[in-house]
Amino acid sequence: MTMDDKAELIQLSHGSGGRLMHKLIKDYFVPAFDLKTLNDSAVIDNISPGRIAVTTDSYVVSPLFFPGGDIGLLSVCGTVNDLSVTGARPLYMTAGFIIEEGFPMSDLIRILNSMKSVSNETGVRIIAGDTKVVDRGKGDGIFINTAGIGIIEEGIDISPANVVPGDKIILSGSIGNHGISVMAERNGLSFEPQIFSDVRPLNSLVGLMTDKTKKIHVMRDPTRGGLATTLKEIAIGSGYCVTIEENAINIKPGVRGACELLGLDPLYVANEGILVAFVDRNDAEMLVNEMRKDKISPDAAIIGEVVETPKQTVLLKTNAGGIRIIDMLSGDQLPRIC
Amino acid sequence: MTMDDKAELIQLSHGSGGRLMHKLIKDYFVPAFDLKTLNDSAVIDNISPGRIAVTTDSYVVSPLFFPGGDIGLLSVCGTVNDLSVTGARPLYMTAGFIIEEGFPMSDLIRILNSMKSVSNETGVRIIAGDTKVVDRGKGDGIFINTAGIGIIEEGIDISPANVVPGDKIILSGSIGNHGISVMAERNGLSFEPQIFSDVRPLNSLVGLMTDKTKKIHVMRDPTRGGLATTLKEIAIGSGYCVTIEENAINIKPGVRGACELLGLDPLYVANEGILVAFVDRNDAEMLVNEMRKDKISPDAAIIGEVVETPKQTVLLKTNAGGIRIIDMLSGDQLPRIC
Repeated sequence: MTMDDKAELIQLSHGSGGRLMHKLIKDYFVPAFDLKTLNDSAVIDNISPGRIAVTTDSYVVSPLFFPGGDIGLLSVCGTVNDLSVTGARPLYMTAGFIIEEGFPMSDLIRILNSMKSVSNETGVRIIAGDTKVVDRGKGDGIFINTAGIGIIEEGIDISPANVVPGDKIILSGSIGNHGISVMAERNGLSFEPQIFSDVRPLNSLVGLMTDKTKKIHVMRDPTRGGLATTLKEIAIGSGYCVTIEENAINIKPGVRGACELLGLDPLYVANEGILVAFVDRNDAEMLVNEMRKDKISPDAAIIGEVVETPKQTVLLKTNAGGIRIIDMLSGDQLPRIC
Repeated sequence: MTMDDKAELIQLSHGSGGRLMHKLIKDYFVPAFDLKTLNDSAVIDNISPGRIAVTTDSYVVSPLFFPGGDIGLLSVCGTVNDLSVTGARPLYMTAGFIIEEGFPMSDLIRILNSMKSVSNETGVRIIAGDTKVVDRGKGDGIFINTAGIGIIEEGIDISPANVVPGDKIILSGSIGNHGISVMAERNGLSFEPQIFSDVRPLNSLVGLMTDKTKKIHVMRDPTRGGLATTLKEIAIGSGYCVTIEENAINIKPGVRGACELLGLDPLYVANEGILVAFVDRNDAEMLVNEMRKDKISPDAAIIGEVVETPKQTVLLKTNAGGIRIIDMLSGDQLPRIC
């Protein structure tokens, strides 16, 4: 290995606060994020008064690159989506990197470029960052933490407490794509047709939805734990019973086949680019029709509704005509999926 | 190992989004941080209009517990201090945890208690969090990322661009304590007297200082890279020459001895509870006298001043009467110090 090759791997000194770290930040992070400062602090001059939403997530997905995305894209979309489903317009993000000694600089650049690209697409600015390096064997390539800040505009109030019996439940797309894509890549499996992660930003879809109706009672993006866990959380938060129809839930044939082969239940597999919305019954049909016009949710569908009892319960009406009680994910079906 | 013992270690399923993760959050995180929600999002209802400061940092310190503190205390103080030295009043924080499978629950509780205690002391609320678990051997116990939000009040403007020749440089306490304390603990060294980390929140000291004068041009907490790197950053940012006097810089005998023994330069050793401030020459004496009345800065001192040239340079007047050019930390003197 020549000195030049060595320079292309992350070294401990890239995280020690000194010259090499300043160079790393100046050469790669500042251009990627159009940062105004080398500091880990940023000042926002013109925040408008009102309600702001704040969120954080760490990303430890393994492998770092998978069909349809990578950890960089995931880290920006995850935070954009968490903010969006609270009804907030995402505006600013921070990004903290924990990199393992020896990590290839070319992979870091690829990840930063993914982050830059989706940051530009969504208009969400990455305004502050931090880099730490841990010794070889004490990390796993790279972990990314992002925190996000958004503005919740007047008249928008999204909370499980707003859910009432009669609400219709809308799902924006097919389930299980992200989890199966990552799991296949991790284990060297291939399915026909290939399964791609659905990782993508949901802010424009949410913008479209909140423009059409103020009667969205709650929204969520069903990530870790899958659709089942998200619905159970909403059932608990609202106090009512969430009923869904198995035959209304869109699952791509490749995902269905992979799940059958591997003994996984797609209801519990992670998603990164769909949302579930609980909407006033009178607006649901109109909203689904509008959502179907958007390129990221052509398959939006009403998958169920809210009823009074049994309290805090999720019931699935199966294709066979039975009823199944749906609980949260228990145990670790697919670890390190995001 | 009984089932009960097993339950006392973090498992992969604690991070998978399902039932065990909900229980972990409900049992430990919600009471520690007085969280209003189990979500990773929070809504702030009453943010006042104006300038807000945002910051982020990841903490990978090794070992996790050291004389005078632990990674939990460090993660809150670090973010509180980053905000404080921008002139902001720290208000809210997020916390993201990346935990290695098998990590003792008792250590996690100890860390959460540290965070809770300093969050209460400073009045900075932890409003959103996230937990991920990585497989054994793919992390190092626990890493914590925090992001912080603060308000910058009218009339406060802290930036290297405000520095002018003639400014006096104030250092709030002795240097090198944090770095030497962590390094000693990591390597099983002991020094007489024992060296304790200086990790502590600086928000009340900064509040006292900004109450006394509006003529603080820039402030920084010299963490990774030490006082030397911080002064060099300010010299570059301001464009002027920063001159300091070796005999004015307070170094405790234990730290001095340890540095001599280990061949370390205390100017480059990390601190976590002191700040350096560049202040209008006419207010410096008054400010130092006020700072000395505060329990965390009895040894505050003027250590130098700003001159015109040589541009972007830091010069140290040594005890021997010579002049030494001070550059940024180069290489990794002490990795994983924060």
